[in-house]
Amino acid sequence: MQATAVSYRNVTIDGGFWGTKVDQAIDVILPRSWEALNDRIPETKKSGCIDNFLIAAGRKKGEHHGYNFQDSDLAKWIEGVAHGLARRPDAKLEKRADWAIRLIGEIQDKSGYLDTCFTIQDRDKRWSNTRDCHELYVAGHHLEAAMAYFETTGKRDYLDTSLKNVEHIAKVFGRKKGQIPSYPGHSELELALVKLYRMSGEKKHLDLAAYFINERGRKPVYYDIEKKKRNGGSHWSDCFKGKYHIVHKPFREQTEPVGHAIRAIYLYCGATDVAKETGDKDLEKVVKTIWRNMTRKYMYVTGSVGSARIGEGFTGEYDLPNETGYCETCAAISTAMWAQRLLALDVDREYGDIMERALYNGVVSCPSEDGNLFFYANRLSSYLKPGGKQGQTQRRPWYACACCPPNLARLLLSLGDYIYSTAGSSVFTHLFINSRSDIKLGRRTVHIEQKTSYPWSEKVLFKISPDKPGTFTFAVRIPAWCRKPSLKVNGKSVNLKTVTRKGYARIKREWGKGDRVELVLPMLPERLRCSPHVRMNGGRVALQYGPVVYCLEGADNGPRLNAVRLPATSKLTVKKMAVGKRTVPVLTGAAERVTADDWGNDLYRTGKPKVEKMRLTAVPYHTWANRADGEMLVWIREE
Amino acid sequence: MQATAVSYRNVTIDGGFWGTKVDQAIDVILPRSWEALNDRIPETKKSGCIDNFLIAAGRKKGEHHGYNFQDSDLAKWIEGVAHGLARRPDAKLEKRADWAIRLIGEIQDKSGYLDTCFTIQDRDKRWSNTRDCHELYVAGHHLEAAMAYFETTGKRDYLDTSLKNVEHIAKVFGRKKGQIPSYPGHSELELALVKLYRMSGEKKHLDLAAYFINERGRKPVYYDIEKKKRNGGSHWSDCFKGKYHIVHKPFREQTEPVGHAIRAIYLYCGATDVAKETGDKDLEKVVKTIWRNMTRKYMYVTGSVGSARIGEGFTGEYDLPNETGYCETCAAISTAMWAQRLLALDVDREYGDIMERALYNGVVSCPSEDGNLFFYANRLSSYLKPGGKQGQTQRRPWYACACCPPNLARLLLSLGDYIYSTAGSSVFTHLFINSRSDIKLGRRTVHIEQKTSYPWSEKVLFKISPDKPGTFTFAVRIPAWCRKPSLKVNGKSVNLKTVTRKGYARIKREWGKGDRVELVLPMLPERLRCSPHVRMNGGRVALQYGPVVYCLEGADNGPRLNAVRLPATSKLTVKKMAVGKRTVPVLTGAAERVTADDWGNDLYRTGKPKVEKMRLTAVPYHTWANRADGEMLVWIREE
Repeated sequence: MQATAVSYRNVTIDGGFWGTKVDQAIDVILPRSWEALNDRIPETKKSGCIDNFLIAAGRKKGEHHGYNFQDSDLAKWIEGVAHGLARRPDAKLEKRADWAIRLIGEIQDKSGYLDTCFTIQDRDKRWSNTRDCHELYVAGHHLEAAMAYFETTGKRDYLDTSLKNVEHIAKVFGRKKGQIPSYPGHSELELALVKLYRMSGEKKHLDLAAYFINERGRKPVYYDIEKKKRNGGSHWSDCFKGKYHIVHKPFREQTEPVGHAIRAIYLYCGATDVAKETGDKDLEKVVKTIWRNMTRKYMYVTGSVGSARIGEGFTGEYDLPNETGYCETCAAISTAMWAQRLLALDVDREYGDIMERALYNGVVSCPSEDGNLFFYANRLSSYLKPGGKQGQTQRRPWYACACCPPNLARLLLSLGDYIYSTAGSSVFTHLFINSRSDIKLGRRTVHIEQKTSYPWSEKVLFKISPDKPGTFTFAVRIPAWCRKPSLKVNGKSVNLKTVTRKGYARIKREWGKGDRVELVLPMLPERLRCSPHVRMNGGRVALQYGPVVYCLEGADNGPRLNAVRLPATSKLTVKKMAVGKRTVPVLTGAAERVTADDWGNDLYRTGKPKVEKMRLTAVPYHTWANRADGEMLVWIREE
Repeated sequence: MQATAVSYRNVTIDGGFWGTKVDQAIDVILPRSWEALNDRIPETKKSGCIDNFLIAAGRKKGEHHGYNFQDSDLAKWIEGVAHGLARRPDAKLEKRADWAIRLIGEIQDKSGYLDTCFTIQDRDKRWSNTRDCHELYVAGHHLEAAMAYFETTGKRDYLDTSLKNVEHIAKVFGRKKGQIPSYPGHSELELALVKLYRMSGEKKHLDLAAYFINERGRKPVYYDIEKKKRNGGSHWSDCFKGKYHIVHKPFREQTEPVGHAIRAIYLYCGATDVAKETGDKDLEKVVKTIWRNMTRKYMYVTGSVGSARIGEGFTGEYDLPNETGYCETCAAISTAMWAQRLLALDVDREYGDIMERALYNGVVSCPSEDGNLFFYANRLSSYLKPGGKQGQTQRRPWYACACCPPNLARLLLSLGDYIYSTAGSSVFTHLFINSRSDIKLGRRTVHIEQKTSYPWSEKVLFKISPDKPGTFTFAVRIPAWCRKPSLKVNGKSVNLKTVTRKGYARIKREWGKGDRVELVLPMLPERLRCSPHVRMNGGRVALQYGPVVYCLEGADNGPRLNAVRLPATSKLTVKKMAVGKRTVPVLTGAAERVTADDWGNDLYRTGKPKVEKMRLTAVPYHTWANRADGEMLVWIREE
């Protein structure tokens, strides 16, 4: 059943697990990102983002700094502000955004071209390298941000700038004579164009998105043609070819997720949107096939993807290294984005469950507790280098390639988009988030209040108040991880078996003001095992409690986490414990660790190793690295 | 006790485990390498090695091709030929070597400078980048080869060329005014100079070697000074700094193995040689400390080192990834070289045991059964990519950076150097290799015949025949892996406890013609466990039988080797089996494997996995990848 997501503008997230994080996005992440974009945070990687605009606008002298997609950081920041202002007024943020929007307008050419990189320099090289130069990617982020800012504030300036840019692109790109038959090297504009189509109702916007999808990977691949035209050379790394850009075959012939994870999943998002709006069943089949392969062969237990740092993307099936994997924050964000779009094609738990898995694990592990530091890569194992310094994975204040922090802010501040969708006279609940919503259902408006501390509580109370009583369907996702869910309507138990289809319990009845739905999702400490096709996790378990994946951290378990074994017979119990400033459920159990002190100088030896008993404590994966430096491990030895 | 290695020129290796390999070095590896150096092997990486010499000599037009250390491939090839000719005449190889030596002579400047790279081009850049340009490294290989060729054939041409080169270098380098206060970016010349000193008796040769050791890492590091002088730029990768070149601190302050593994260990070899010849106890302490740290914290169970492909070298202590590690063939070769040199400082099993471990595992894994293909990296785990193609590790006919094949040839053909050493009236046996030797012991010559199929047999028979009867000590290493060694002299048991010191059983008696020493080293299938400090091998065992490390291979055990568990209670038995064309002892035992067919589409799930019983077969690690493509695994899940 196709459905339409309820906009976050009709949803207020308050309190609970997400409320504080959403507020933190406004109070900490956005102001801090502004400082970073203006290069005012000492001892962090230079952004150059605002400077690039000042230089392109002629207000400042200098050269373009940084990656050629840097403009998008500002666009995503404005989008975050737009979402934030919809939550609550913030004069300071709005003033900054207005200033930035004016500045963006100043760099635009008469043609509509809008990109600092090839405005400051190399104007003749515009559109000469669509594979590497991110001009279309940047356009997509401008467009998303401009629409959001217009919707929240009613101010049209940014939208006008962006629409002029879109008109320019529509002229430049296409299969007609004189046009460039190319498509975004880094997808993003596709999904933005469908969003625009939904706002404008103008079919040309949908057509352009569909063109980009359908053209992708057609032989001969235009990226090779343009490379010859410009006499070779790259603006990125020429090592990355074919699969990296997802052009190894025409898009409709693709079945496996490949290439740079974010490029790929943004593309899949756009294709899913196009399939939804055009009713193109073939395209729908393509994206669903890729989704199934991705979630069944390429996805970490945290709901993130990307197995290699080099190329930031997919490698082979079942290749999920824990210590050297990548799991970029934006990869988990885009997985959630894609799941939400697939839910619009088909309300099925296989999408909702993974959206939840990504959000509670691979996404929310990104920010530090205080919102000041961010993970770019979210690996599943981390060790200490000699001297005790954190190896591989560590949150940092900012990144030279700073896609993740502003992406996180805009996701958190639009998280309301992910909770509900509607179809006909049905409303579907995908996520359990403490919130108040006003949902249009035909001519009816239904006020739904969710009261829950989920995932730290197994109870979710829905208060359902239509403006006028009537019959409609209220549906909730029953997560696959839950063994014994139960649901009551106004205190009366519902037989879930009879009302659940595709993982959603669908309650059709006459609803009146103040009706109460009580959902209980009993949580047990679960041991997840990994497919034997994955060579990394043999004999190991990952612990999960509710939708939350757990990990061992040095702070609780000392060093040498790979010398720790959790016997299959060991019972795991739940207790509340402070992890940093938060008190959360942690899992503990009797375990053992190979002792180190009797090893002397031996590196290898025969004889059964001596073990010492210990009590293992696992904390939610996303809370790790908020205390002292130490090891971290998700997949724990069991056998 | 200091000792002196017996030269391979007095040792004939015949039959047994090594005899065929030594012959293969002459019959296959050297002729094939010659074709490669001449770029006559189709579809392999271009060498350009001989071409570079032809161009530098003005016999051919063209540009320098390949790495700036390519000349050394030819030098190592000639060294291999020199060793080979000492074994048996080969007119074809000798003719080729003579031709090559003439060619090398032609490219030498009047000054003595000898390097194709900066003769073909950039003559003004000679010695401008001693960190990256390998001119001293190449000089070292020429010198070793020239000495070997002179010793075998009596022909002086190459030696004269090389000595002129050494004289030039002695003028150019040093701390005097006008000299360059630098040292080899890639060590090798140091150990070659000590070899020269042993031949020439001229202290200036030892002094130059000692100077290179002592200067290394002195602040300010000359590599930084020369970089400024040449206005920056690199002839290699500028990413590699400090530790990579082992100049992060003065050499005598170093305690841990660091940097590029081969650069490092060749340096340690040179320093060990200098310590031996100068009697410098401080320097001896430095190399012994680094050795201990290397073998106790940085060494794979195959006796190889080098944990990372990038930088080809050491990473941190206890960082021994199996799938992504490196274990370059030359790293295992140089570990054996270093162990042999340490045995000259101190006859102690800790060196002999590791020399044996490296030779029977990390070194001899390099060539394919037929000697036509070579491993550059010798990883401890290998998997199949989708489609069944070998991942990560695969033997190839040649390499763009082709250090390993000629290095293997010269090692195999000088393996006699590693078997015995003498000190006063003692002769020490380090390796058990079927061979006949004539060993000078004071004024006595002792003929020792070893008859053994070791490591495929646990028995070694020594026939000891001094030219005249007399009292001396015959000592044999008792490997630490052996639980119940026994030794008989002329049929009479010796109490090993009373005669063994530092792991060597020392039999002092009057020896006469035809005395027989029977050593029995009973072999059991052993399960090695790895230190709990190594996070990669927790709960896993490596199998060893005698000195040979075993592995699981797809050919015998099917796919998903990380889903295989060898229970601690499972008894391992030995049987003979054909692996490729060889029949070798293999280890078998009852094991189990997590079944895959009941997993359907699941990637993660709860519930105990279903296992199927199987019989596991482990083959000698060095024999793997001689059959069909498939997985390989050294560290097997046990718990």
